[in-house]
Amino acid sequence: VSDQTSPRSGETPIVEFVVTGDEVMRGTIADTNTAWCAARLYPLGLRLRRTVVVGDRGEDIRRALLEASARADFCIVSGGLGPTSDDLTVECAAQAAGEPLRLDQGWLDWLRARWAARRKEPMPANNERQALLPETAEIVHNPDGSAPAFTMRIDRCTFFFLPGVPREYQRILAESVVPRLAAAAGQKALRMRVLQCTDISESALDHAVVAIRERHPEVRFGFRTKFPENHLSLAAVADDEASAERNLAVVEEECRRTLGGRVYGADGVTFAQALGLELAARRQTIATAESCTGGLGAELLTEVGGSSAWFVGGLLTYSDELKQRLLDVSAEVLRAHGAVSEPVARAMAEGARLRTGATWAVAITGIAGPTGGTSDKPVGTVWLACSGPHGTTARLLQLRGDRGQIRLASAFGALQLVREGLGLASPAAP
Amino acid sequence: VSDQTSPRSGETPIVEFVVTGDEVMRGTIADTNTAWCAARLYPLGLRLRRTVVVGDRGEDIRRALLEASARADFCIVSGGLGPTSDDLTVECAAQAAGEPLRLDQGWLDWLRARWAARRKEPMPANNERQALLPETAEIVHNPDGSAPAFTMRIDRCTFFFLPGVPREYQRILAESVVPRLAAAAGQKALRMRVLQCTDISESALDHAVVAIRERHPEVRFGFRTKFPENHLSLAAVADDEASAERNLAVVEEECRRTLGGRVYGADGVTFAQALGLELAARRQTIATAESCTGGLGAELLTEVGGSSAWFVGGLLTYSDELKQRLLDVSAEVLRAHGAVSEPVARAMAEGARLRTGATWAVAITGIAGPTGGTSDKPVGTVWLACSGPHGTTARLLQLRGDRGQIRLASAFGALQLVREGLGLASPAAP
Repeated sequence: VSDQTSPRSGETPIVEFVVTGDEVMRGTIADTNTAWCAARLYPLGLRLRRTVVVGDRGEDIRRALLEASARADFCIVSGGLGPTSDDLTVECAAQAAGEPLRLDQGWLDWLRARWAARRKEPMPANNERQALLPETAEIVHNPDGSAPAFTMRIDRCTFFFLPGVPREYQRILAESVVPRLAAAAGQKALRMRVLQCTDISESALDHAVVAIRERHPEVRFGFRTKFPENHLSLAAVADDEASAERNLAVVEEECRRTLGGRVYGADGVTFAQALGLELAARRQTIATAESCTGGLGAELLTEVGGSSAWFVGGLLTYSDELKQRLLDVSAEVLRAHGAVSEPVARAMAEGARLRTGATWAVAITGIAGPTGGTSDKPVGTVWLACSGPHGTTARLLQLRGDRGQIRLASAFGALQLVREGLGLASPAAP
Repeated sequence: VSDQTSPRSGETPIVEFVVTGDEVMRGTIADTNTAWCAARLYPLGLRLRRTVVVGDRGEDIRRALLEASARADFCIVSGGLGPTSDDLTVECAAQAAGEPLRLDQGWLDWLRARWAARRKEPMPANNERQALLPETAEIVHNPDGSAPAFTMRIDRCTFFFLPGVPREYQRILAESVVPRLAAAAGQKALRMRVLQCTDISESALDHAVVAIRERHPEVRFGFRTKFPENHLSLAAVADDEASAERNLAVVEEECRRTLGGRVYGADGVTFAQALGLELAARRQTIATAESCTGGLGAELLTEVGGSSAWFVGGLLTYSDELKQRLLDVSAEVLRAHGAVSEPVARAMAEGARLRTGATWAVAITGIAGPTGGTSDKPVGTVWLACSGPHGTTARLLQLRGDRGQIRLASAFGALQLVREGLGLASPAAP
């Protein structure tokens, strides 16, 4: 299909999206596919122009396809490829192109083999419907499902029809569609890296790298907030793989030098996972003692598969009584300073380390709101402590935001103390 | 605007959505507004036909508005109302309608007052831009922000222009837009209830209420999965408030009777919140002892504001050693049965209840995967226990799904044991 994948004008290709399905139109399920796809196509330099969502109505689907066919070079269509009567996309594609349907014998064989491998009874006749395709359509293999992904041209536009199931959509897109569009965008090679940062705002991140960005127009910079993290994505586009690789490496190195310990990981690792990998490498362990975060710190750590190698456990002490009973915080210290105080945070961290025997123990005590604040200690006042082989450090946070944000920022702050204790970050980093 | 809110044809009004913004088009942020809105408009019987997403390009926005104006009776537009140069929606609305902009003195006064209440320096001149509106636009008040929500007619269609910030969008929509559309849908009264269920699949839920649904065509039934919960929404539409209220009450009562303890709450309460309210009313408390869920159970409980009144604390014991040290599980029981076993779950719950002094203690020990399973105890094997005033109960779950789903279903299962202990649900419910 080499002639199909080059836009006629020589300009950067225009891409549109069509999403079909009553459930999406009615808000029963959210369309996450398009954002997923767009985030991968945008760095290629493609012009993403429009997404149209329509329900399972033939005239709406045909109209959306024909409109896209007149404007776009490429259109990614999702949904409506199943075997039931409300799956209209194949029929509408054929009608929009003005061509009949044909039975694709290859796909029918695949469907029958797939069915036989899973069930004893023969495949029902209405499943054969999934082997009907528009006459000029070309199958794009779908290794995960029975819906036939296919590509065809209508008017000036090359369409890719994909199943709406996110797992199938994403795999076909990544394996079969993105490479074709990257080639059409005139790029021989693309290398990407996402640098994941914590402890820095989006505007501070932008500001920190602006000079690097200006020096290196050959790499695209993108920013994305995933509270309380901020991610910097770097996309190097070049004529060949080696140049793209080299250009990316230079810019990544400069960004890492500038951002220092604010970069905790890259390309999808989670904050807790990055810390866990580091602990595992050093054969060290961690425990948590939490109050206002209600176990969120432990939850972040344990959502990492294999965390039992470096996470030993946690104590969640909401009441003053439990802080005494489970963590040996003295009644006197609680009385003198209150539960949200530096001495209590320190005592909690030290008590947790002692009780669990972990290398590191972090403590979080604060006021997450929405109620419970005072003029002395308003909502968002959080004391963190980290007890480790070299002693105990503590930090006061004064956070803003809702209960969920305060809890999340507190848990991240506590883990950041451990990163500092490990020498991976410094409190005075830029 | 009574003449604007009745579609000319007497047919059910057609609604379309337009979403603007480069960040949405590029997949940097997901548009959650439209699904939120659609889920509220669909039960009104409106015909939801199309959503169009475009970036911050004048011609794309104008085209989307004009296309909608020719087809729809109502169009909800979000985004592009801010003060910066890439906020083009107001200008495009005026151009699409073929009318000039005017300065809205009322909104300018509001903007200035809002600014003065927050900052010392005078409002910058470019913020005055937010008081410019198309000549025929009518302000829809936005109590939460500076962006002027407004409504105007273009061709046959009444547009509502709303800020893209979800909090502002949702409030304006619920308070000002939905009532107008409900009236236009020819409905004098609408009453809704969402019955939130746990421990029942979507298809079992559908099956359980199918007879009620057939007996009561005057109430619309909708289903929505929010793993591991399933929600049943009931929308009663009638000529007057009293009838809608009465019709809803009848159907709600029948559904509740059929579903029994599977309904844990209604209209947005969370599962943990419903349990907490019940505990607070009885002046009882709860504690958690968790292993594979890594504190998720405690996290669900403590994300509820005010949970310190009924949640005392939790112990998170990943290692066998901590199960002994912190929960007094005997080394012998651990050796004889393994950490994932009924006796260990029971001992954990009893140990937690004793250590914390709570009325109820739940324990969770299992294999969340993706690794750690054996042929005896595959991934998804989870033992739950609940210790309370009348003794200890235990339950085995054999779950499927990924690590996150197994953890979530386990935490819900443990809280469900407490609901059963409280007499709010029964293990043999339909």
